[in-house]
Amino acid sequence: MSQITQQITQQVAQQMTLSEKVQRGEIFATECPSREILQHVTSRWGVLVMVALLNGTHRFSELRRKIGQVSEKMLAQTLQQLEHDGFVLRVSYPVVPPHVEYSLTSSGEEVGKRLVALTDWIETHLPQIMLAQQK
Amino acid sequence: MSQITQQITQQVAQQMTLSEKVQRGEIFATECPSREILQHVTSRWGVLVMVALLNGTHRFSELRRKIGQVSEKMLAQTLQQLEHDGFVLRVSYPVVPPHVEYSLTSSGEEVGKRLVALTDWIETHLPQIMLAQQK
Repeated sequence: MSQITQQITQQVAQQMTLSEKVQRGEIFATECPSREILQHVTSRWGVLVMVALLNGTHRFSELRRKIGQVSEKMLAQTLQQLEHDGFVLRVSYPVVPPHVEYSLTSSGEEVGKRLVALTDWIETHLPQIMLAQQK
Repeated sequence: MSQITQQITQQVAQQMTLSEKVQRGEIFATECPSREILQHVTSRWGVLVMVALLNGTHRFSELRRKIGQVSEKMLAQTLQQLEHDGFVLRVSYPVVPPHVEYSLTSSGEEVGKRLVALTDWIETHLPQIMLAQQK
């Protein structure tokens, strides 16, 4: 590669955003950001939040009631991560007392559908899995 | 219900195995065993083990190499959980040095396919997700 070509390539690379540089994630690569995103949606509460929201918009208190045992702190942290990844939309209404609603974005719906396929399978095959555990 | 009918119902219930009593899991019920099973297959290393094994049989050392950063202890624990749930088959050959192979059972393959649908989506949409994170 000539020096000029190298310079141009570097300049173009510098102007590219991070997302333009990443063509496709690789879940097995330790440094790939896809691993962290996967962990957000498959975390203990992440899965349940996504599955709950696939059924429609929820207020914070509704989510907390639906997802038993989750603490206020953990639910807030889970929602923040999912909002940051662009999967959850948080809408705050300027009223007293505060009214905040959470729903899935279009990419959140895509992820949510895949998670439901997994949880549905586990739910419907639970007897079979428990039989295997007894062996 | 007459007393005799009640007695018969109780006797039948006692003879039922745990898996016969559980008709279908409910992921939102805090006490449902489906929650723990879900956590095994969606744990940090559980997902990666299942996705790796969907590509075929692996030895322990091969899995460890493929799934960067996983410790020997955590990989062994993850495999034990998945074996206990009936998703992973462990075959040990009586040779020196020990030769142990891991593969997916038929139910493991069903779960694995659903996990790959999720990881594939995240991998292919990583640029889009990272763009959302920058906003």
